[in-house]
Amino acid sequence: MMSRFGAMLIACLAAISVAMAQPADPLPSWNDGAAKKAMTDFVARVTTQGTPDFVPTSERIATFDNDGTLWVEQPMYVQLAFAIDRVKAMAPQHPDWATRQPFKALLQHDTGAFAASGQKGLMQIMAATHAGMTTEAFADSVRDWLASARHPRFDRPYDSLVYQPMLELLAYLRANGFKTIVVSGGGVEFMRPWMERVYGVPPEQVIGSSGVVTFQAGANGRPELIKEAKVEFIDDGPGKPVGINRFIGRRPILAFGNSDGDLQMLQWTTTGPGARFAGLVHHTDAEREYAYDRNAKFGRLDKALDAAASAGWTVVDMKRDWKVVFPSLTASAATAGGKP
Amino acid sequence: MMSRFGAMLIACLAAISVAMAQPADPLPSWNDGAAKKAMTDFVARVTTQGTPDFVPTSERIATFDNDGTLWVEQPMYVQLAFAIDRVKAMAPQHPDWATRQPFKALLQHDTGAFAASGQKGLMQIMAATHAGMTTEAFADSVRDWLASARHPRFDRPYDSLVYQPMLELLAYLRANGFKTIVVSGGGVEFMRPWMERVYGVPPEQVIGSSGVVTFQAGANGRPELIKEAKVEFIDDGPGKPVGINRFIGRRPILAFGNSDGDLQMLQWTTTGPGARFAGLVHHTDAEREYAYDRNAKFGRLDKALDAAASAGWTVVDMKRDWKVVFPSLTASAATAGGKP
Repeated sequence: MMSRFGAMLIACLAAISVAMAQPADPLPSWNDGAAKKAMTDFVARVTTQGTPDFVPTSERIATFDNDGTLWVEQPMYVQLAFAIDRVKAMAPQHPDWATRQPFKALLQHDTGAFAASGQKGLMQIMAATHAGMTTEAFADSVRDWLASARHPRFDRPYDSLVYQPMLELLAYLRANGFKTIVVSGGGVEFMRPWMERVYGVPPEQVIGSSGVVTFQAGANGRPELIKEAKVEFIDDGPGKPVGINRFIGRRPILAFGNSDGDLQMLQWTTTGPGARFAGLVHHTDAEREYAYDRNAKFGRLDKALDAAASAGWTVVDMKRDWKVVFPSLTASAATAGGKP
Repeated sequence: MMSRFGAMLIACLAAISVAMAQPADPLPSWNDGAAKKAMTDFVARVTTQGTPDFVPTSERIATFDNDGTLWVEQPMYVQLAFAIDRVKAMAPQHPDWATRQPFKALLQHDTGAFAASGQKGLMQIMAATHAGMTTEAFADSVRDWLASARHPRFDRPYDSLVYQPMLELLAYLRANGFKTIVVSGGGVEFMRPWMERVYGVPPEQVIGSSGVVTFQAGANGRPELIKEAKVEFIDDGPGKPVGINRFIGRRPILAFGNSDGDLQMLQWTTTGPGARFAGLVHHTDAEREYAYDRNAKFGRLDKALDAAASAGWTVVDMKRDWKVVFPSLTASAATAGGKP
């Protein structure tokens, strides 16, 4: 048996080794400024033992919106691009779609007619492309699509169009004992197949909108989970705090979003007791990414921007605060678009 | 900066130190026998790198039923005892309950009349006692009740009537890289306030039945989550694999239950590819706990017992396999029934 002194010596040396191995700047893609300082100050406050703001690791819950906060959401939500490609691929088996809205609009790239079909049209597209198969077959279809689809402007796999500064923030928070949770209006079954590989966020820490899933005895007697064409839960707006309560059961102490769909999550996060942090990614960089806010079709940021001003939330100005937007393709090529 | 040799030396010494500190038997409350051997053999198989059965830690998901699997469920589900006590406490504010079923039956301890009110009666009780308040106020009421309520036979706090051998199994699995998830027909908001303290299972790894929760602006302008008197999800029977898919997004490789409500979870767990383990706690010990199976009112074990026999699942015989059932009260008194 090792002596107590020996064990202590090892523990001390190990701690020194960890301390020495830490990089000088855990957020190298962030320019120095108010946003970066607000984040690192907050983390220092809640992780310093013996101070009033200290938060035990079990309570260090950080939630992140996905579309527009962790990856690109222009010229349309990535999941909508996926659904459109699925409609095209499935169209030969559905000849009626050529003359039936909202399918006709998508097949003819008539965005005006598709927009006119509204929420109902979107639901019809989702039902046709996201249901009637096992959860595992759907996950495979997502992986296959990500491996081949390319963003129309950047000509890169969608899962390489993630924000490098936010990847660093996720890793920085986890290194400081946080659990990093994705809370997105996107479909949970669309996100889980790739988020662990791309963000380091495992499936059980991904919250999203969902359709009804039923348990059935499969044809071969093996049970299966089948995705049904019925919406179960919309994880957007007031649904976000509800979803966080349902899945996590704890109020976050830090939350990041970029649109009005994140407003209630940020309100819920910041009105709990103790130290709290709310951040918004403001898309201000038409050159490197996109510039949009109050009038955007996807990711509209209006009420939440006003709330940020009055509540003192941190607004990240993409153009000013980020040294780079996307990871270099060489760095991400090894994993981007690939199966795990 | 420490030399590479120094760092390696420390890592090696630390590993030796950990190995030496491991107890000879991680499951000391289990008698040697087929059940214990099946569990330790399974864990050895899936954690030995370079073998065909090896499972990476991210996929090591273990799910456990709660009532009758981790804690006592006789003479009635603990949550029902909680609901009855709440009906009694709330009765003065509801004079009509004295003459109105199913409340009258509960207040008069008329179990026959209450049973006759069926699922509908149970839902009325749940709606009256589990709704119309914030999620945080409800969690407080659960903690307060656990601190004062006592089991009618054992005269101990309910959260000290957990199964010591199963506590050891949970810890043993976690020490081997598993995530241990509770998947219960019980209410998720009833379980989360105490399971981290008692089982070491944090709220986000607790799946259960749930009522609708809505996001509202509170009276003071601070947002609140309000529990509504409407069932949202029943996490029982076929609902268990559906709940696991919804909350965890991965098929477990190990699952433990004790009743027919766990059948589909065990089927779902064992029909995935690779090494799989399914276990049932069989209550065979009327002296130390209870003896019941095919005819039980709570925790009926009938179809799942037949399925275990034909599929070769591990059936734990409480009387034969467990050296002790409950933790000694002195050992658990420090935490049992207390607020965290």
